[in-house]
Amino acid sequence: MLLQETLEKIRPLDRSLEAEVQKHLDQLTKPQGSLGRLEELARQVSYIQGSVPPRLGRKVIYVFAADHGIVEEGVSAYPGEVTAQMTYNFLNNGAAINVLARQFGAEIKIVDVGVNHDFPSVPGLYSLKIRKGTANFARGPAMTREEAVQSVEAGIRLAEEAAGQEIFLLGAGDMGIGNTSSAAAVACALTALPVRQVAGRGTGIDSGTWETKVNAIERGLVLNLPNPKDPLDVLQKVGGLEIGAIAGLILGAAANRIPFLLDGYICTAAALLAYRFHPAIRDFMIASHASAEAGHRFMLEELGLSPLLDLNMRLGEGTGACIAMGLVEAGVKIAREMATFESAGVAQKQRS
Amino acid sequence: MLLQETLEKIRPLDRSLEAEVQKHLDQLTKPQGSLGRLEELARQVSYIQGSVPPRLGRKVIYVFAADHGIVEEGVSAYPGEVTAQMTYNFLNNGAAINVLARQFGAEIKIVDVGVNHDFPSVPGLYSLKIRKGTANFARGPAMTREEAVQSVEAGIRLAEEAAGQEIFLLGAGDMGIGNTSSAAAVACALTALPVRQVAGRGTGIDSGTWETKVNAIERGLVLNLPNPKDPLDVLQKVGGLEIGAIAGLILGAAANRIPFLLDGYICTAAALLAYRFHPAIRDFMIASHASAEAGHRFMLEELGLSPLLDLNMRLGEGTGACIAMGLVEAGVKIAREMATFESAGVAQKQRS
Repeated sequence: MLLQETLEKIRPLDRSLEAEVQKHLDQLTKPQGSLGRLEELARQVSYIQGSVPPRLGRKVIYVFAADHGIVEEGVSAYPGEVTAQMTYNFLNNGAAINVLARQFGAEIKIVDVGVNHDFPSVPGLYSLKIRKGTANFARGPAMTREEAVQSVEAGIRLAEEAAGQEIFLLGAGDMGIGNTSSAAAVACALTALPVRQVAGRGTGIDSGTWETKVNAIERGLVLNLPNPKDPLDVLQKVGGLEIGAIAGLILGAAANRIPFLLDGYICTAAALLAYRFHPAIRDFMIASHASAEAGHRFMLEELGLSPLLDLNMRLGEGTGACIAMGLVEAGVKIAREMATFESAGVAQKQRS
Repeated sequence: MLLQETLEKIRPLDRSLEAEVQKHLDQLTKPQGSLGRLEELARQVSYIQGSVPPRLGRKVIYVFAADHGIVEEGVSAYPGEVTAQMTYNFLNNGAAINVLARQFGAEIKIVDVGVNHDFPSVPGLYSLKIRKGTANFARGPAMTREEAVQSVEAGIRLAEEAAGQEIFLLGAGDMGIGNTSSAAAVACALTALPVRQVAGRGTGIDSGTWETKVNAIERGLVLNLPNPKDPLDVLQKVGGLEIGAIAGLILGAAANRIPFLLDGYICTAAALLAYRFHPAIRDFMIASHASAEAGHRFMLEELGLSPLLDLNMRLGEGTGACIAMGLVEAGVKIAREMATFESAGVAQKQRS
């Protein structure tokens, strides 16, 4: 079973390089530590890769699209068809993630893991469809346990494929109308946080729709009783196909020692699942940004991660991960490309 | 007098485009407002340029180098010669700002406004030296009033030159051992904030050196009694040549309707000066980041600006401005390059 093999491959982060990493950073022509989080990022990438200085390479974001049966309950401001329509928009380079990927030099790969639409074979679209959207988890389990495994293994396979391709940063994005409801349900099932605290306004719903959303999630949790100790059970009962795939991509990235950029709300719910599968994955992740979606910060707190950016964004698609990739790359280039005090003939600090 | 002419050219920001700007942003394929501060940046650039969507162009950072007589008091961890040494490092592409400028596609121009060193004529170095460093302001005025005017006008001239060159973002960086002492003195003189609150650890001094620094700044303020209503008096008595030049660049950017990216501590002290020259410049500035240098946030509060980034950086050189330029450009590209709901065939929101 690919999932089991992957979990066995994951090793805790090796910090034995710490002294060497720090010595390298401190000989560069800047006051020690003065580049703050850029230096932290360079350190983390060094530990993950086992390389001083850290290596550069391609930056890739997988954007996973899937539909959610929970939209039947009237939880979203947009109709379910928008998932497929936005998938075409990604393929035509018209969405926010396309613009940001060009700006920050990331490649995006669009993956259908569960859209309720038959796409023609199109260049640039990975077809890994498991089923045409989840079932409505307010009325029964979202999917079968077998489908939950398939969704996670779809993400793992993409990470395995990436591992041979000089990819130095992986990230994930999401598209799925209704998916903030599934993500909130997953996060609440895993953490026992109250739904009212974790569920937000998604694409911008009014108060009445928000009450409907909270109610639907609460009913789904009571009806399905997902087991918080069993991430596959949580995913199967109240999750989403893209949430499973993102969890798998995170596990696969950690197993292959590739730093993973978290995006926002959906991606972080998937990270909570991945963390339940294996706690060591935490150190392979970089929290890109604090989403404006209420509840995201509680998920990051559960993971013990501090976001790099706080730009009041709440779009998903991998937009936060993409911007943060520019910062991680900057940190790595600082470690690789700056002159040393010695090479530049700059005098060092006199006093401490 | 160039300074006076420039002040007369500055006009308050024109927000008459507000409805048109918002309509344009809201037809793009994303939930309204979901790109948060990226959308705010696109709006601000539209207002400054008077253009919907905003225009793109070159991104340029002027890095001003100058020496500071206050180093005689033992306020820094580095010797004064490092100002010239680091200027060579900039010219040889070895400093942090060189690496970050390559990463985010900004051009940097190195400007000597007052380094205590005779540079040979080198490609890439603007020589606008006013004097070989300031005098020690703990023992008398830092410079003459005429020199203060010259430093401001040096910055204005660079902005005027930039205005004809399709530059869409301007920023400034600084290099000058001792300049956090001058910047703190300028900020305290203008705002009446206490020196102990505004002065920080600079390049990383110990507690004893920090006490020496606070004491030297306090003595300088008492001795020189700069007039808080007269920014030239403040600059002359306790300022620095690069601080004056940056203030001038900000004034010139506003006069020519070019968005200006603030950097950290030194640049923000210069912005306080520019703000005292003309309050309308505030709306032409974007606060890049919150410096880790204690006191920077009080300066930003005086300006009423909220920083885009908080990466625990405290290096100067324009490093914060450079990273933030990537975000501003991203916001502008969002406004320019995304598909609309209509062009992409994506259904709009059903409920509000």
